[in-house]
Amino acid sequence: MKRLEELSDQIEKSMERLHFSGEPANLYDPLNYILSLGGKRMRPLLTLLGCDLFHGDIKKAVQPALGIEVFHNFTLLHDDIMDQAPLRRGQATVHKKWNEPTAILSGDLMLVKAYELMMKVDGVQMVKVLELFNQTAAGVCEGQQMDMDFEKSDSVSVNDYIQMITLKTAVLLGCGLKTGALVASAHESDADLLYDYGVNMGIGFQLMDDVLDVYGDTAKVGKQVAGDILSDKKTWLLLKAFELAEGEDLAILNKWVGERDTTKSEEKIAAVKGVYERLNIRQLATELSENYFLKAERLLDAIPVEKERKLPLLAYSELIKERVS
Amino acid sequence: MKRLEELSDQIEKSMERLHFSGEPANLYDPLNYILSLGGKRMRPLLTLLGCDLFHGDIKKAVQPALGIEVFHNFTLLHDDIMDQAPLRRGQATVHKKWNEPTAILSGDLMLVKAYELMMKVDGVQMVKVLELFNQTAAGVCEGQQMDMDFEKSDSVSVNDYIQMITLKTAVLLGCGLKTGALVASAHESDADLLYDYGVNMGIGFQLMDDVLDVYGDTAKVGKQVAGDILSDKKTWLLLKAFELAEGEDLAILNKWVGERDTTKSEEKIAAVKGVYERLNIRQLATELSENYFLKAERLLDAIPVEKERKLPLLAYSELIKERVS
Repeated sequence: MKRLEELSDQIEKSMERLHFSGEPANLYDPLNYILSLGGKRMRPLLTLLGCDLFHGDIKKAVQPALGIEVFHNFTLLHDDIMDQAPLRRGQATVHKKWNEPTAILSGDLMLVKAYELMMKVDGVQMVKVLELFNQTAAGVCEGQQMDMDFEKSDSVSVNDYIQMITLKTAVLLGCGLKTGALVASAHESDADLLYDYGVNMGIGFQLMDDVLDVYGDTAKVGKQVAGDILSDKKTWLLLKAFELAEGEDLAILNKWVGERDTTKSEEKIAAVKGVYERLNIRQLATELSENYFLKAERLLDAIPVEKERKLPLLAYSELIKERVS
Repeated sequence: MKRLEELSDQIEKSMERLHFSGEPANLYDPLNYILSLGGKRMRPLLTLLGCDLFHGDIKKAVQPALGIEVFHNFTLLHDDIMDQAPLRRGQATVHKKWNEPTAILSGDLMLVKAYELMMKVDGVQMVKVLELFNQTAAGVCEGQQMDMDFEKSDSVSVNDYIQMITLKTAVLLGCGLKTGALVASAHESDADLLYDYGVNMGIGFQLMDDVLDVYGDTAKVGKQVAGDILSDKKTWLLLKAFELAEGEDLAILNKWVGERDTTKSEEKIAAVKGVYERLNIRQLATELSENYFLKAERLLDAIPVEKERKLPLLAYSELIKERVS
C-alpha cells in the first residue's frame, strides 16, 4: 500500500526532526529522551490517515499529529511514575534516569508543548481541534484514574473495564483520526463517524492485547507471557472469569488471585488458564473484540467518501489487527 | 477604591461558583479541594484589572482569569509533590490527603481545565491569549526546574536567582495582566508594557517576600520566621551575602549553611542574620526590590490611557506592596 507507506515515512521523518530545546537542560532533555525511545507512532499516523481520507493537505496535519504523539508520550511519562515502572521499551524510565520531581515537571512541560503543536492548525478548525483535544485529554486522565481505582476495588465489572479502556486508550485513537478530519475541513458528522471508528478499533485492539498477554508467544509479544495473570491485573478476561465462575472454578480463582509467591508463578498461570479454558474466556474475548472491529467497519462504511480513499486506513487497521492476533 | 472592590468581589464570586464535576470522584475532588483552600486570588484579579485598564468588558475576562488561577493552583499541587510538602495553607496537601499518583493525575487534569478556561475568549484574541499562556506555562516549568537545580548547585549567582524568580513567579503576573489587556483588544505594544509592568512588580514582590521571611514578624508572615535561613534556601539575600562575604563572615556562612541540627536553630539564625547585618543585605535587597517597583511604575506611566483608569491597578499594587513590606 504505497499511500500508507508515504504517510508512515512522513511521520517517521517528522518525528526525527522533532526536538525540544530550552533551558534548563534537566527539564528539556527528558522530553527528547522519551520521544527517542521509539514506538509504533500509531496516533500521529492516524491523524494523517484521517486527513487523507477527506482529501486534506497532509502537510497541514503534521504538526497536530506530532502534538498527539507528544501528548501520548506525556501520558506514558507520568503513568510510569504512578506505576513505579523502571523500564519503558527496555530503557530506564524518566523518573529512574533523572528523578521523580524532574519527571513530573518535564511531563507537565510536555503537555504544554502538545498544546503548542495542536494549535498549529489554520483558522476556525483550530478551535475545534483544541476542543476535541481538551475533551480527549480529560478523558485519558479519567481512564487512568479508573485503572488505578480498579486495583483497590472488588466490584469491577466487565462493563467498567470497557469504559476504562475506552477512556484510557481508545478515545486518543479517535481523537487522532478526527483531528486529521478536522484539518481537512470534513463535515462534523463525518468527522464524528471517523472518531467513533477509532474508538471502536481501539477497544477491539485493547481486548486483543489482553488476550495476547495470556496466549501470545513470548517472542511476538515482547514481554513476559501472562504478566497480567501474575500481577492480578483486572483485565476483561479475569473479570469475565469471575463473573462466570462457580463452585470449584471460583475457588481456584479466589485461591490464586492475590498469590504473589514467585516460586508458584507457573502453577498460578496454569491454574488461572485452566479456569479460562473451562469458561471459554479466550473465545468470548476474541468474539467481543471482533464485534468492536465489525462495528468500526460499519462506521467507516457510512462515511460518504469513495471506497478507494478508505484503503490506506483499512490497510493500516489490518496491519494492527494482525499484530495483535 | 470602589472599582477595585467591585472587581475583587467579581473574582471572589466567580471562584465560589467554580466547580469541576466528573468521574471518577477521586480524580475531580482534588481540583475542588485545592481551589477551596483559598488564597489571595491575585492573578485572576490582575486579569480583570488589565481588562478594565483598556476599557474592556470585564465579563469577558472572567473565564480566562479563572483559567490563570486554576493554572496557578495546578503548579502548587505539583510543586507540593516535588517538595514533599505536607501542608498547604494549613491543610493537608493533595498528595497527603489522597496519594501521589492521584495528585500527579489530578494536577494534569487541572492543567487541561486551565486550557479549557483560557479558550473562553472571543475570536482572534483567543489565539493570542493561548500563545501567551503556552509561553508562560513553559516559563513557569523552567523556573521551577531552576529552583530545584539550585538546591544541588554551588555556583548560583544573584542574577541566576533573579532569572529563576522571574520565570517561576513573575511571568504569571505579567500573563494575568496581559490576558486581560488582550481580552480588551488593547494594542499589542500596550499589552506588552502591561506585561512588563507585571513582571517587574512580581520580581519586586518576591524580593520583598524574601526579606520578610527573615525580618517580618511571625504573626504577619504567617509562617516560621527565617525558615529560609534554616532550610538554607538560596534566596537573593543568602546569595548576595556569599558574594560579598570575606574572612570571618565567609567562615560563619560556611559553618552554618548546611547545619540542620534543630537544637541549634536559634544560634544559626542569629549567626546568619549577623552576617546580613554587617554586609547590609537587608537594605540592598530592599533597594533592589524598590528599583523593580520603580521600573514597573515607569512602564505603567508609558501606557497611553488616562491616569484615572490606572488608579485601581495602582491601588491594588500598593496594597500588595504594603503586605510584603
